[in-house]
Amino acid sequence: MSKKTGISTRHLNSINNLSNREIETIFEIAQSYLDKLPDKLRSYRIGRSTDIASDFILASLFYEPSTRTRLSFESAMLRLGGDVITSADPATSSAAKGESLADAVRVIANYADLMVIRHPRDGAARLAAEYSPIPVINGGDGSHEHPTQTLCDLFTLKKKNKELRNLKIAISGDLRGSRTIHSFVYALARFGARIVPMPAPGMELPHHVYRRLREEFSCKFDSADGSIGALYHTPVEPHQPALFSGPDFELSFESSSSAMEKARKQKISAVYVTRFQKERWLQKQQEYPRIDAKFLKDPKYSRASVLHPLPRVGELDASVDSDSRAAYFEQAAYGVPVRMALISLLLGLHEGETLASFEGGFEKSSLVLYDQPLTTGLRCANPNCIVHEEKEAPYVRNKFHLLTHDKAAAGRLRCFYCESEMDAFVIANRKNKWYTTDTFALAGITNQNVRDFLFFADESDAIGSGFHTRKNFAAKHSRMAAGQS
Amino acid sequence: MSKKTGISTRHLNSINNLSNREIETIFEIAQSYLDKLPDKLRSYRIGRSTDIASDFILASLFYEPSTRTRLSFESAMLRLGGDVITSADPATSSAAKGESLADAVRVIANYADLMVIRHPRDGAARLAAEYSPIPVINGGDGSHEHPTQTLCDLFTLKKKNKELRNLKIAISGDLRGSRTIHSFVYALARFGARIVPMPAPGMELPHHVYRRLREEFSCKFDSADGSIGALYHTPVEPHQPALFSGPDFELSFESSSSAMEKARKQKISAVYVTRFQKERWLQKQQEYPRIDAKFLKDPKYSRASVLHPLPRVGELDASVDSDSRAAYFEQAAYGVPVRMALISLLLGLHEGETLASFEGGFEKSSLVLYDQPLTTGLRCANPNCIVHEEKEAPYVRNKFHLLTHDKAAAGRLRCFYCESEMDAFVIANRKNKWYTTDTFALAGITNQNVRDFLFFADESDAIGSGFHTRKNFAAKHSRMAAGQS
Amino acid sequence: MSKKTGISTRHLNSINNLSNREIETIFEIAQSYLDKLPDKLRSYRIGRSTDIASDFILASLFYEPSTRTRLSFESAMLRLGGDVITSADPATSSAAKGESLADAVRVIANYADLMVIRHPRDGAARLAAEYSPIPVINGGDGSHEHPTQTLCDLFTLKKKNKELRNLKIAISGDLRGSRTIHSFVYALARFGARIVPMPAPGMELPHHVYRRLREEFSCKFDSADGSIGALYHTPVEPHQPALFSGPDFELSFESSSSAMEKARKQKISAVYVTRFQKERWLQKQQEYPRIDAKFLKDPKYSRASVLHPLPRVGELDASVDSDSRAAYFEQAAYGVPVRMALISLLLGLHEGETLASFEGGFEKSSLVLYDQPLTTGLRCANPNCIVHEEKEAPYVRNKFHLLTHDKAAAGRLRCFYCESEMDAFVIANRKNKWYTTDTFALAGITNQNVRDFLFFADESDAIGSGFHTRKNFAAKHSRMAAGQS
Repeated sequence: MSKKTGISTRHLNSINNLSNREIETIFEIAQSYLDKLPDKLRSYRIGRSTDIASDFILASLFYEPSTRTRLSFESAMLRLGGDVITSADPATSSAAKGESLADAVRVIANYADLMVIRHPRDGAARLAAEYSPIPVINGGDGSHEHPTQTLCDLFTLKKKNKELRNLKIAISGDLRGSRTIHSFVYALARFGARIVPMPAPGMELPHHVYRRLREEFSCKFDSADGSIGALYHTPVEPHQPALFSGPDFELSFESSSSAMEKARKQKISAVYVTRFQKERWLQKQQEYPRIDAKFLKDPKYSRASVLHPLPRVGELDASVDSDSRAAYFEQAAYGVPVRMALISLLLGLHEGETLASFEGGFEKSSLVLYDQPLTTGLRCANPNCIVHEEKEAPYVRNKFHLLTHDKAAAGRLRCFYCESEMDAFVIANRKNKWYTTDTFALAGITNQNVRDFLFFADESDAIGSGFHTRKNFAAKHSRMAAGQS
Repeated sequence: MSKKTGISTRHLNSINNLSNREIETIFEIAQSYLDKLPDKLRSYRIGRSTDIASDFILASLFYEPSTRTRLSFESAMLRLGGDVITSADPATSSAAKGESLADAVRVIANYADLMVIRHPRDGAARLAAEYSPIPVINGGDGSHEHPTQTLCDLFTLKKKNKELRNLKIAISGDLRGSRTIHSFVYALARFGARIVPMPAPGMELPHHVYRRLREEFSCKFDSADGSIGALYHTPVEPHQPALFSGPDFELSFESSSSAMEKARKQKISAVYVTRFQKERWLQKQQEYPRIDAKFLKDPKYSRASVLHPLPRVGELDASVDSDSRAAYFEQAAYGVPVRMALISLLLGLHEGETLASFEGGFEKSSLVLYDQPLTTGLRCANPNCIVHEEKEAPYVRNKFHLLTHDKAAAGRLRCFYCESEMDAFVIANRKNKWYTTDTFALAGITNQNVRDFLFFADESDAIGSGFHTRKNFAAKHSRMAAGQS
Repeated sequence: MSKKTGISTRHLNSINNLSNREIETIFEIAQSYLDKLPDKLRSYRIGRSTDIASDFILASLFYEPSTRTRLSFESAMLRLGGDVITSADPATSSAAKGESLADAVRVIANYADLMVIRHPRDGAARLAAEYSPIPVINGGDGSHEHPTQTLCDLFTLKKKNKELRNLKIAISGDLRGSRTIHSFVYALARFGARIVPMPAPGMELPHHVYRRLREEFSCKFDSADGSIGALYHTPVEPHQPALFSGPDFELSFESSSSAMEKARKQKISAVYVTRFQKERWLQKQQEYPRIDAKFLKDPKYSRASVLHPLPRVGELDASVDSDSRAAYFEQAAYGVPVRMALISLLLGLHEGETLASFEGGFEKSSLVLYDQPLTTGLRCANPNCIVHEEKEAPYVRNKFHLLTHDKAAAGRLRCFYCESEMDAFVIANRKNKWYTTDTFALAGITNQNVRDFLFFADESDAIGSGFHTRKNFAAKHSRMAAGQS
């Protein structure tokens, strides 16, 4: 990591690494590539319209199967005049010899000018970015996120609807396992769209995604909207400026009950369908929603575009293909201009239009960061998190962001890598050797004193490490955080 | 398929999709690339001589192992100044997630300007072409065809022999399983060459290929030519103009018995050797012809070039490599200039010299097309046909061309995808609910009334679907076809 | 092989195929690419600085997993403005159909202008070169050699140390199985560096490598240097001019005992760490040296760079990464400029600076070459040699170079392909039908009479082939060789 010192770059791990304004910039440039097309090509195909990336190489580093993400990235790079090197099969790469991702990234960073990574582990792209002096784009990491797919999804919605605010988007299928969905709902929330979850049984959005929508992106759950929960933006809570600086969000909408009633009756703008992510589940899926011509006959879908990140494996009937509402092949096609725009911006090839670059590649978080060796105390509870990959053990740490948004509730930890959350753990103070199970105490931890604290999975771990209980620990810290100490 | 409406393009699925004149055009351009070579290179190597494809991308979509076909296509595209995206391993593509070919093609068509496809199923390239707005080249589909290999084979023969007419070509090995052979014999027949089949035991040319040679390409079987059948062109039957518009064929040769006698004594011009296609057979091969120095000592091979599409696995002895008759590495080398010519023509990069483009990518067939849903009635009898691939079920139909060439014989059906043929089935009339097992009745079906008919595999199926026999049905239709009704 | 006649090219199979002067030339050009870098890039990254290879294609032909070798070659070719075709997975290439390497090479040589090959068999690259009219670069063949890795290693050492002469290099780990080590120690010896072997138990340098260092590169073993043997150059024996023409070696150093004493006390200049080559061993490794912060605290390593060809799998602790002595990522980064230099020289793209080209691609050896069919007599004793690969049987022969350096010792045979050595075998004379087990007799064999001799593995083989003993055969030939006959 010492290699990175002073290197200013920009990575894309989560859709939340891009501001609304930056997303708009990407779309403007993507559109400019589409506008250059000769008339004879269909509206969503693109030729080689530029040579601006001719001095650059993209590395495709795929540890999981892919066709469209990899090929659309490669096509985008070639359409920009650049070149590509590809490692698409872990069985024929040095991963087969047992190499860590952290090492692979540090090596390949010397062979290319930016890289796109796909990996079966949640948080892998964040780890890769930690070790890369060149921009790392997350091409899908476990069931965490897939931000460039979301860019294509949003671009498609925008082409169909002019703006995203107040759209009502139904999301159907494996909302838990689909990384695509997770990036997508954050973006929808941030741009003021309404989300109608239609999960397969047992495949609801993960709790931490729900909570983040509610707490960070100010969404409200509306249980009165039929049998399906609806989430609404509400302006009653403060926004995080970095994420909401775009013009769209500033125009926040009314949240009176009459507006809500109107929203409930609003037709669905788009149905976003996802396949069962069989590679993320141990069991087979029994029941799964299937979108077909019959489903779409319901009047509330009469103007709904049908989107799907593809591939599909039965959940979206081929009979829909000839329906004018089907937008999924167009959506796939936008992968090229949108990724052209992203790549060229990350490489700094557009004068005037840029993505900010940061030391270490990410905007500094306002959240307190806990950072301890992997051998010490609490580890991420998500078994698929990259921290549990044996090969990466020397290169990861127990790192969590402290979530203390909601002063009325106990705090939580968000894994630095996979962004899943934990709300039950033990907080121990290394100075006085006391521990507490009351996660209110998080509120008393700051970037200045965070090194004094250790987190444990349970009391026996804390006791085994020489800590003991203190009755009023939590209360005191809670008071401290409230400025009452 | 609605996506295709109005799109005029050109696909290459079968060698029979190219007219003789178009094949000549490809060869002229291939030769022009060879002519540009600096003297210091060997006659069949080629450098980057042009940049005409610099705005274009070729997608290599290989669902089966390949080295020479894929690499020679990619080399050809790069030599033209173009770029390449590659999906060479189904295990690392979205196929591993269960994606259909029809979907993959519709997506990838947005990332590239033309694509080459290899697939284990017969007819896969035809299916792909149905869904692609960009040119699809068949890089080998099951045991159906491999037309670009045939272009290289013909080009090699032409370089060695000046013209193809009246050459006598022995074809040895797995004539049944080798897609290369199937494309090759059609082309030989069309250019007036004589074919001497030398099959491994049980590996004769498929019946439908024999019949097509005889009926469509006017070949005659000569049982008197030693122990091996020889096929001769004869001008007594009408030619299908689209296939025989080239100058070569117009000069049809005599078929008198003295000419035949002469032909029998003619030395072999080339021996075309093929490997046992183990991936197409369930059983192991016991006995297989082996071409070696001793075999070639027979005087009738004294001037025979030895060709092989490669790879070889024992059927062509290494001792032949140093024989001046060995032409197989030269044949492999021509893969680049021939494919450069094909690609550049399909992309329309040569002024004056073009391949015609058609709506849907294929010249309209003069044969009547039967087209019913996959769930209705007769399905293709070839178990390896793409229609039997579960993943493609929503994207294929029961489609057959009606063969009624030979008025003296009963009719047959040719599968729209894999081009294998069926000659025993049941024809049912939806209007009067009668059915017949007499395939003479095909002759009464036209593009106007074809929707009134259903085909079934056997009588019980027809009866199960509510049809019943009618005695004189066949006779009537037969008479109708003959204009006597 | 007839194809090659008269073709003058240059292959790189072993580091010993390059003279010291040529290695220096490669480094000068590599440095010139680094010098062109804009200041804002780190010292070891490289942009597209040239377009000199824009007319050329590199073929990557990898039969074993690789990331850094393949991707750095491809990046190098792209940075030179060239193009790349890749076959990275034997399971999806024609090798899966049973094709021989000899055939694959002859085909692919028509699709590219040079090729890099990786293969699990020792000697595979030598075989490939035999059949290729275009330059073949050995990208690692079994446990034989990996010469381009050594170029990167040497370049790194040179950047750190200005010159290689008199450096003291510790090599740690699997010295037997690591092809990287084998190329490396030859180069170190040739440039006058001292080698301190630190093998894992049972993983010493192969005997033939030791012997070659001693006999061909004039190294001496110093058992007094602690518990680890040290090898020193000594100028008492004649050097092979082709390998030692560089300026470095001419300045040979003193070998007096005081100089040796000084050398013993000299600090280690670099520790070269290698992983356990699990793919080369049947058994698991129990004990393996591990280089970590503690190891490097020993004062003798205080100024030692730490090198590793990567990937690492535990033998080099991540704690070293932040140590200023860690040079392995820099070493990996040099892969691009060094390979750019090699490729551009092999393609003849530098006026004035060239690598010599030879008929057949290799400088003619001064050693006598024994060359018999694979079915006749002695075969290479190395079970992993390419001669034992069934698919290659028609394309390899029993070929050995005769080693008679050391007049005081019996002679040995060096396999033409894998360069492993045999020192017990039977020499038979076809003219008089006598045989001997005394390998002194090798000394009597010359390029003129070598066809009169056959080698056998043991006496029963010789007898079985109709030979019988002759008492004074060996003595006579030995005398002959000494000029006393």
